[in-house]
Amino acid sequence: MRAVDIIARKRDGLELTSAEIEFFVRGFTEGRIADYQASAWCMAVLLRGMTAREATDLTLTMAYSGHVLDLSSVAAVVADKHSTGGVGDKTTLVVAPLVACLGVPVGKMSGRGLSFTGGTIDKLESIPGYRATLTEAQFKRQLAGHGIVVAGQSAELAPADGQLYALRDVTATVESLPLIASSIMSKKIAAGANVIVLDVKVGSGAFLKTATEAEQLAELMIAIGRSVDRRVAAVIADMSQPLGRAVGNALEVREAIEVLQGGGPADLRDHCLTLASLILVLAGTHPTQAASRADLERALDDGRAWRKFVEWITAQGGVPSVVEQPARLPTARLVEDLPSPRDGFIEQVDAQQVGMATVLLGAGREKKGDAVDHAVGVVLHKKVGDPVAAGEPLLTVHANDSDRLAAARAALLDVFHWSETPPPRPAHLHRIIGAPDADR
Amino acid sequence: MRAVDIIARKRDGLELTSAEIEFFVRGFTEGRIADYQASAWCMAVLLRGMTAREATDLTLTMAYSGHVLDLSSVAAVVADKHSTGGVGDKTTLVVAPLVACLGVPVGKMSGRGLSFTGGTIDKLESIPGYRATLTEAQFKRQLAGHGIVVAGQSAELAPADGQLYALRDVTATVESLPLIASSIMSKKIAAGANVIVLDVKVGSGAFLKTATEAEQLAELMIAIGRSVDRRVAAVIADMSQPLGRAVGNALEVREAIEVLQGGGPADLRDHCLTLASLILVLAGTHPTQAASRADLERALDDGRAWRKFVEWITAQGGVPSVVEQPARLPTARLVEDLPSPRDGFIEQVDAQQVGMATVLLGAGREKKGDAVDHAVGVVLHKKVGDPVAAGEPLLTVHANDSDRLAAARAALLDVFHWSETPPPRPAHLHRIIGAPDADR
Repeated sequence: MRAVDIIARKRDGLELTSAEIEFFVRGFTEGRIADYQASAWCMAVLLRGMTAREATDLTLTMAYSGHVLDLSSVAAVVADKHSTGGVGDKTTLVVAPLVACLGVPVGKMSGRGLSFTGGTIDKLESIPGYRATLTEAQFKRQLAGHGIVVAGQSAELAPADGQLYALRDVTATVESLPLIASSIMSKKIAAGANVIVLDVKVGSGAFLKTATEAEQLAELMIAIGRSVDRRVAAVIADMSQPLGRAVGNALEVREAIEVLQGGGPADLRDHCLTLASLILVLAGTHPTQAASRADLERALDDGRAWRKFVEWITAQGGVPSVVEQPARLPTARLVEDLPSPRDGFIEQVDAQQVGMATVLLGAGREKKGDAVDHAVGVVLHKKVGDPVAAGEPLLTVHANDSDRLAAARAALLDVFHWSETPPPRPAHLHRIIGAPDADR
Repeated sequence: MRAVDIIARKRDGLELTSAEIEFFVRGFTEGRIADYQASAWCMAVLLRGMTAREATDLTLTMAYSGHVLDLSSVAAVVADKHSTGGVGDKTTLVVAPLVACLGVPVGKMSGRGLSFTGGTIDKLESIPGYRATLTEAQFKRQLAGHGIVVAGQSAELAPADGQLYALRDVTATVESLPLIASSIMSKKIAAGANVIVLDVKVGSGAFLKTATEAEQLAELMIAIGRSVDRRVAAVIADMSQPLGRAVGNALEVREAIEVLQGGGPADLRDHCLTLASLILVLAGTHPTQAASRADLERALDDGRAWRKFVEWITAQGGVPSVVEQPARLPTARLVEDLPSPRDGFIEQVDAQQVGMATVLLGAGREKKGDAVDHAVGVVLHKKVGDPVAAGEPLLTVHANDSDRLAAARAALLDVFHWSETPPPRPAHLHRIIGAPDADR
């Protein structure tokens, strides 16, 4: 078998065998196949596509390129959720304790933010003391003792994916559905959970811009997961405007806490309930989403979800006084409203542009390894469909540096689009795919 | 400008600007753009294509990546011919002195053979003493003094093409028409001739397998050449069976000499006359191919072409006694006929398979840098359309090693296909593209 022949076969649109995919990916990971061959192969995959069978083989080869966690000794069912990345997406902070407080263990490894989307670990680290770096033993102990753990992704998790992703990032081969699906699912499979809900974002604030792409990606990831006996379902969710109102690490933690205490923005609460109810149905605790949703709403409203959050965060090292009093989370020195320049209705809130503005404030990373300012960000006061009068605040900027504030202010002026008449409010949820109760 | 954005634009099927192409190719050649980015870009070009304008920009960037020969001080018109590579293609050995003896200077840089096709320089080096490695001054002196020079391609000629080709070779990105066209034309433009006839081969013994591809390649190369004021035309020629009868370096030199002395196989003589007459029309010495052909036939038949050959080869160092007495060229120790196993008509002579068999004999290279045995090869006695009786020799094998002879014999058994009834003889010439007299 020769690398160049495998590249040629994919170039010509042929389906690769399992042996060819394994030969190629292992060869690349172990240094026998050059990076210039792997990048040409990635471009051929991007332009020629892959069957679900090929994508599954690629996923498993990458998952088993490193250590695969076995959590069966800790719990028979362990749930995970994964978002393809959006602006203002703090759902893990709500969904994990919400599910766990109803008795379904959640064990999750999460990434850090890159470009205009934030990362769950960055958000959690805005809580002083939170330990995101856990050994495997610590991960399992936290999961066994509290039924909930969220840690940073270890380097040994699917290392082939890490190597291939680094190459894709600089060769314009990121935007391939089978490569995205394999990258996500290889890490999910290696991380050990057997119930997985995928939150696939679509719209200007997400990597995927069309619903068709998002559905294809979701279906491919479900097929891959099921081929190795994971219970998987997916939600296709709108990311044309940010989820909730807060964008920025500590600001998002505060908003998540509002939801956990029974309040918070309606779209965020609703989305968290959708994800959590899917997890419970997949885990087998409830027969339908409707039944689980009723229980989940009660858990938000009666404080159980909130208490589970406090238990989780403090067990992972978070300073209890800060967790219990969110006002003590990091706050920014400069707080400034952005007034509306006109009357009208908000027709569009460009999520990607909001995300870019918060990167300018220091809330996110332009490149890997950049430091993150946990305090800064943006809180939106107006979302699509809202009426607004000239001079009324559109959003509040939280900054720690006047130069960065000026740069963000300029970027934020492009975020809003107006109309004279009330535009339709966008549906937050597009579709649910693979729910067991819908399949019946 | 960033390399990854240029890759993404080509990936998305967009037309690159001249500045983008120059940035990318120069960046790669000068080491600022990584080979893994260049290979992903080549795959995107292969699968998305290039406009003629893009291919022209790529060609010129590669041509001017090194020294570009200026031959205007030597002659107002200098002719070159280029074959895309075939089996038994010894036309340069005939066409160059044939054209030169009618007063049109020929200045050519030529490659060495690779895989199943032979290289002109290898053939010339079967003549003891022939100097293929010339400095620029020597090249110009030989051209000025004798109106004919054929040298090996210097490393400074379009070095970007050499670097990019080495990468394409191992990343399955060779078979792209714009990349092939740019590779050929960058070297032709750098080598300084202003009249260029392209001999584009199509069929089993050529890289291009269909006439459509061959015509597209020819038209693209003509467009590129004309954009920088080269006078270019192309011949689309059949390479489903070898050209002439001899395949192997010294054996081909002998056959070329037969044509130069007024004899030789009809297909080879005819093809050389076609190429030479196109050159004369492009050079402006004759108004039509018909008029030039009459003069060229006379030059073959009255010995002028042969005398020019002797002058050329001896001026470039070839031992005169060998040139004048071709029997003294290298000869193989083992000479063996391959008898026909059956009666019938020859329906097919697989040119690629003949080429592969001569590589097994040692006449060609499996990889760059391999040594070549000038004496060995094959002489065909039967070609497509010929009747044959069982036991009659199909071909004669010339070998220097009994193991290699056995290996070649096994490969040669697959070369011939028979039919019961006389099959049509394949047309040697498919089409002429860009002839000035046809355009009128």
